[in-house]
Amino acid sequence: MIKAAVLGATGYAGIELVRILSAHPDTELCVLGSHSFAGQNIKDVYENFDHILDMDCTELDLDKVKECDVAFTALPHGASKTVIPSLVELGIKVIDLSGDFRYDDVKVYEKWYGEPHSSPELLAESVYGLPELYRDRIKTARLIGNPGCYTTCSILGAVPLLKSGIAKTDNIIVDAKSGVTGAGRGLGLPYHFCECTENTKAYKVATHRHTSEIEQELSNAAGEEVLISFTPHLIPMKRGILSTIYVNLKRESSQAELQKIYEDFYKDEYFVRVKRAGKLPETKHVAGSNFTDIGVCYDERLKRAVVISALDNIGKGAASQAVQNMNILFGLDEKTGIKDAGFYL
Amino acid sequence: MIKAAVLGATGYAGIELVRILSAHPDTELCVLGSHSFAGQNIKDVYENFDHILDMDCTELDLDKVKECDVAFTALPHGASKTVIPSLVELGIKVIDLSGDFRYDDVKVYEKWYGEPHSSPELLAESVYGLPELYRDRIKTARLIGNPGCYTTCSILGAVPLLKSGIAKTDNIIVDAKSGVTGAGRGLGLPYHFCECTENTKAYKVATHRHTSEIEQELSNAAGEEVLISFTPHLIPMKRGILSTIYVNLKRESSQAELQKIYEDFYKDEYFVRVKRAGKLPETKHVAGSNFTDIGVCYDERLKRAVVISALDNIGKGAASQAVQNMNILFGLDEKTGIKDAGFYL
Amino acid sequence: MIKAAVLGATGYAGIELVRILSAHPDTELCVLGSHSFAGQNIKDVYENFDHILDMDCTELDLDKVKECDVAFTALPHGASKTVIPSLVELGIKVIDLSGDFRYDDVKVYEKWYGEPHSSPELLAESVYGLPELYRDRIKTARLIGNPGCYTTCSILGAVPLLKSGIAKTDNIIVDAKSGVTGAGRGLGLPYHFCECTENTKAYKVATHRHTSEIEQELSNAAGEEVLISFTPHLIPMKRGILSTIYVNLKRESSQAELQKIYEDFYKDEYFVRVKRAGKLPETKHVAGSNFTDIGVCYDERLKRAVVISALDNIGKGAASQAVQNMNILFGLDEKTGIKDAGFYL
Amino acid sequence: MIKAAVLGATGYAGIELVRILSAHPDTELCVLGSHSFAGQNIKDVYENFDHILDMDCTELDLDKVKECDVAFTALPHGASKTVIPSLVELGIKVIDLSGDFRYDDVKVYEKWYGEPHSSPELLAESVYGLPELYRDRIKTARLIGNPGCYTTCSILGAVPLLKSGIAKTDNIIVDAKSGVTGAGRGLGLPYHFCECTENTKAYKVATHRHTSEIEQELSNAAGEEVLISFTPHLIPMKRGILSTIYVNLKRESSQAELQKIYEDFYKDEYFVRVKRAGKLPETKHVAGSNFTDIGVCYDERLKRAVVISALDNIGKGAASQAVQNMNILFGLDEKTGIKDAGFYL
Repeated sequence: MIKAAVLGATGYAGIELVRILSAHPDTELCVLGSHSFAGQNIKDVYENFDHILDMDCTELDLDKVKECDVAFTALPHGASKTVIPSLVELGIKVIDLSGDFRYDDVKVYEKWYGEPHSSPELLAESVYGLPELYRDRIKTARLIGNPGCYTTCSILGAVPLLKSGIAKTDNIIVDAKSGVTGAGRGLGLPYHFCECTENTKAYKVATHRHTSEIEQELSNAAGEEVLISFTPHLIPMKRGILSTIYVNLKRESSQAELQKIYEDFYKDEYFVRVKRAGKLPETKHVAGSNFTDIGVCYDERLKRAVVISALDNIGKGAASQAVQNMNILFGLDEKTGIKDAGFYL
Repeated sequence: MIKAAVLGATGYAGIELVRILSAHPDTELCVLGSHSFAGQNIKDVYENFDHILDMDCTELDLDKVKECDVAFTALPHGASKTVIPSLVELGIKVIDLSGDFRYDDVKVYEKWYGEPHSSPELLAESVYGLPELYRDRIKTARLIGNPGCYTTCSILGAVPLLKSGIAKTDNIIVDAKSGVTGAGRGLGLPYHFCECTENTKAYKVATHRHTSEIEQELSNAAGEEVLISFTPHLIPMKRGILSTIYVNLKRESSQAELQKIYEDFYKDEYFVRVKRAGKLPETKHVAGSNFTDIGVCYDERLKRAVVISALDNIGKGAASQAVQNMNILFGLDEKTGIKDAGFYL
Repeated sequence: MIKAAVLGATGYAGIELVRILSAHPDTELCVLGSHSFAGQNIKDVYENFDHILDMDCTELDLDKVKECDVAFTALPHGASKTVIPSLVELGIKVIDLSGDFRYDDVKVYEKWYGEPHSSPELLAESVYGLPELYRDRIKTARLIGNPGCYTTCSILGAVPLLKSGIAKTDNIIVDAKSGVTGAGRGLGLPYHFCECTENTKAYKVATHRHTSEIEQELSNAAGEEVLISFTPHLIPMKRGILSTIYVNLKRESSQAELQKIYEDFYKDEYFVRVKRAGKLPETKHVAGSNFTDIGVCYDERLKRAVVISALDNIGKGAASQAVQNMNILFGLDEKTGIKDAGFYL
Repeated sequence: MIKAAVLGATGYAGIELVRILSAHPDTELCVLGSHSFAGQNIKDVYENFDHILDMDCTELDLDKVKECDVAFTALPHGASKTVIPSLVELGIKVIDLSGDFRYDDVKVYEKWYGEPHSSPELLAESVYGLPELYRDRIKTARLIGNPGCYTTCSILGAVPLLKSGIAKTDNIIVDAKSGVTGAGRGLGLPYHFCECTENTKAYKVATHRHTSEIEQELSNAAGEEVLISFTPHLIPMKRGILSTIYVNLKRESSQAELQKIYEDFYKDEYFVRVKRAGKLPETKHVAGSNFTDIGVCYDERLKRAVVISALDNIGKGAASQAVQNMNILFGLDEKTGIKDAGFYL
């Protein structure tokens, strides 16, 4: 059994990790770290765990965590700064859900986060935890930067076009729509039910940090620098991200050609489902699962590709992708504990 | 492996059965019966099943079903009339999700359904599939009448008070609130998103058929005839039933005494969670699970008990309870495939 | 023009007052009091008011308010303590939306609010602002205690039966369902979108303060003390209250008789709509309006009445009822500014 | 008083017209045409109109309509074909909410609607009813093609950039998000509450008819042919459209310059509200109103403009814009009956 710690267990990504790991056949949950709910039993914080999991939340205590094989860190930005180096030093595999260890270039991090990185050497060593692109490197990593939710959705949606060489790299637009769990469990007027329901809005136009993470991976795929417009929107639903991606093409193409590019690219991937021509992803098809659904449309009139990709922001966009990374790290079948259909209803 | 047929697989209870059974370690899904979607692959009807389940839906074909060990019938009222007797005759265990096989007394059925029962002998033989009350009889049944959603919620909530002898049996009021999946997948103006969201209403006041089913079981528990007021309400959410049950008491009592009655009654039941004094059930604690959560309050002023019970109407109120019955029927651990926490978010 | 102050203008009841009064033909909005947003323009706090209303919110300043004819106080409990006596002394008509001035008997207030009343003489003088019951007294009041939302809904639903003499007064049950605006704009985990949507729960079972206010008015109607069970529930919608009221009857009755009791009782009331037999209220029929819809059902089997009443908790349950009271106080047509249909969609 | 007929009164745009016109001080509702509900009183079809409007719905009867001054036609595509020419011939002003009379060029209509136009002469005469662009021509029109919902939102959002000459005309992307009332009241599985809530999806990618209407007006504004990518999305809310519009610029610009372009362009328009720099539109700010809110952002990095515009799809996107057109046609103050703030909550 893999002994696992979830640090930041009572946020939305954290509790989804707890939900998955508590049912995972090869994992034993050993530490539930939570500053806000330290001393409380997890089943009193999330009452759906009554009869399932009977464990107290604790303040961070390295002595306890050091008996674990893996630590998932879903801590507020900053809180992880000192913790993660200590964990890595203790020889614990770390899968970090923050933005801190997702960058190839520390300067990009520092530009978008507006502060120096506290562990540039660890950043240099860390592996970007997107299995569909970096499976081999993940296997031997000590520290995995688990990708963001908008990021995973947008990268998986756009990369096949860029790798194929058919895409123009200027004028890529990613218009993304997210459910409210993406904003976390913290209180804030925009997330009050009465403010949030029956409402849609854009936010952080042209300035959202995930832009830099998407650009990094699209640039890697294209082999040249790619800059994108990225606009996140808040949608009145709990779970789900839908990215609508506009890509100009270097030449005329066809629905069949684009379809083939995607089907070939993902032919061995269980967790990416390419929709047949004429079908499109919907967030409810992926809610509660580790799947990313992708549909590609060729706009005959404009000779442009429009790609739609969907995933569950706290699933493949956070918790279940972290478990996928754990499975890879520990040599398990990659699908263990996360292979099922989402709940649809 | 238990070979299972789901007849009526594309309705909401049916597809929840498919979701659970497709992940159940001891079951093999062999037949997905669906009149509306016959000839279509289940993953095209519910696209969340892509990469999970690759099976065509079929018209009812007894030759195929007869190779199964168990059939779940989630058919429209009437459609099951001829099918179920044939299945039972073939020696297939039948778990029926309709109201047809839930009654001790055929006259009660005929009064509330307004028509003669088509198989009164089978009705007489059938077992009411509420494991918490009839586990032993379920073990050897050939035909199980799987309880309704409002019914399970209300019966599990009220029975301990009635069995204990402390409850007065007149003036029991059950005020129930249901999510919209309870109305099924069929189209109807009241279930149009724009009509349904931001709305609450009562319906079938004093005339809902589930009244009779609740009265039957409360009468059995009390050892005398119990008549109740039952009012169902439609709530703008997908899943969940919350029953608020008002029961007068024969004498003064206390929170502690009522608490003990419930804790004792359900002390060996995994799927019933009695809330501690001061805590109350919420539908999101049970959504996606097979749990029923129950809280009991003693109203000091009025010497009256108010019981709140909650379950997932397509989980413990339909599909996962049917699987619980299957587990019992086939000698499996009762929790197999349905033991996990619901999804909360 | 009636000069009006809204104190507590940026809460949900306050802003609904602002919305109604800004379109009211005989009213001029002069003061928008808001502690939290003092110094900010109302159109920056609620951006739907851009191009409509260009006024700064202010801290409470009696010098400004004293030039008004009427003050609506929608202040947090306690904040109104010192303000209201000052306003009354200044000769300003006060319509208070808190619970402070709704009681006939100061002892009842003190029992349910758990503290001494700060202005018992003013309480004695104040008038309960339910026009359908106290229209004449409202006309000459200096201080009106505007009824609560659950309260208005439940009282209007039950009073005809009690006044008619047909109702038994024990065993009255009021099971009420409220939208989330009822909890106000303050932040709290239960009102976070992700916690609140797809959820239903009861709260404050047997202890909610509105119980005492309903009991007061039902007792007045019955001419004897009436105690009730009152259970509030939180429903995932913004606006609306639905009360389901169970009343035993002293003798057999009929749908026609109950129907007549209600139709006669409300025959001159514009803002109460009695549903025809077989029709039932829904919250979306009243959302955004000052109407209360009431349906009465006779349960033939149990010889019991079940009454369903619905209103908009921040409309007839708060803001528009306050405007109705203002209209009466100032001799206007009672319907001025609040006569239209709600928005349904 | 202007005598008005609403033909197609029981659809969502129709009933919003009825709601507005029933409270409009200068209008008398004379005919409520509805094929589906002919013979039923409008207050039984939409129960929020009880005590407000007591009128039967009728089958189309030109003898009745001919006594009206204006007819609003909100009929299914095709049904209006024969009706509208007859109405125009009778001298009744017609405001048509279908797509039939919105085109400068009949060939564009025929290409996107896939059929010959039945009244090309009338199309040639008709005026595009977007007051902010065509106010003068609307004043004397006999037949107004009331713009579509996506269309109004996108055109008002993009036109200032195009008119100013700063916009490049290739690579304009309009990514739009709509509430579910946009799909009408007709039944369909995608609009079933349980399918629709907690879901987001794109539809009709690169093929939605509104594309052509937007292109027509952007071309008119630019003085050259403009082709756009337009992607509509279905969002789980009732009302509201948010368009996110990406426009490349011919040269470097600044937030201040873009801001000024919008503020100048709309400085005399009551119903268009340009957000201050740093503020963005949200659909709840406009729900229930005739306002369009627009925010413009300059992306420094990419030298690109991102414009967000929001309106209520059945308000400014249909019914209240039709009333705005009526007000202009009949020489009333353009704001009559539609000037108020939306309901926010």
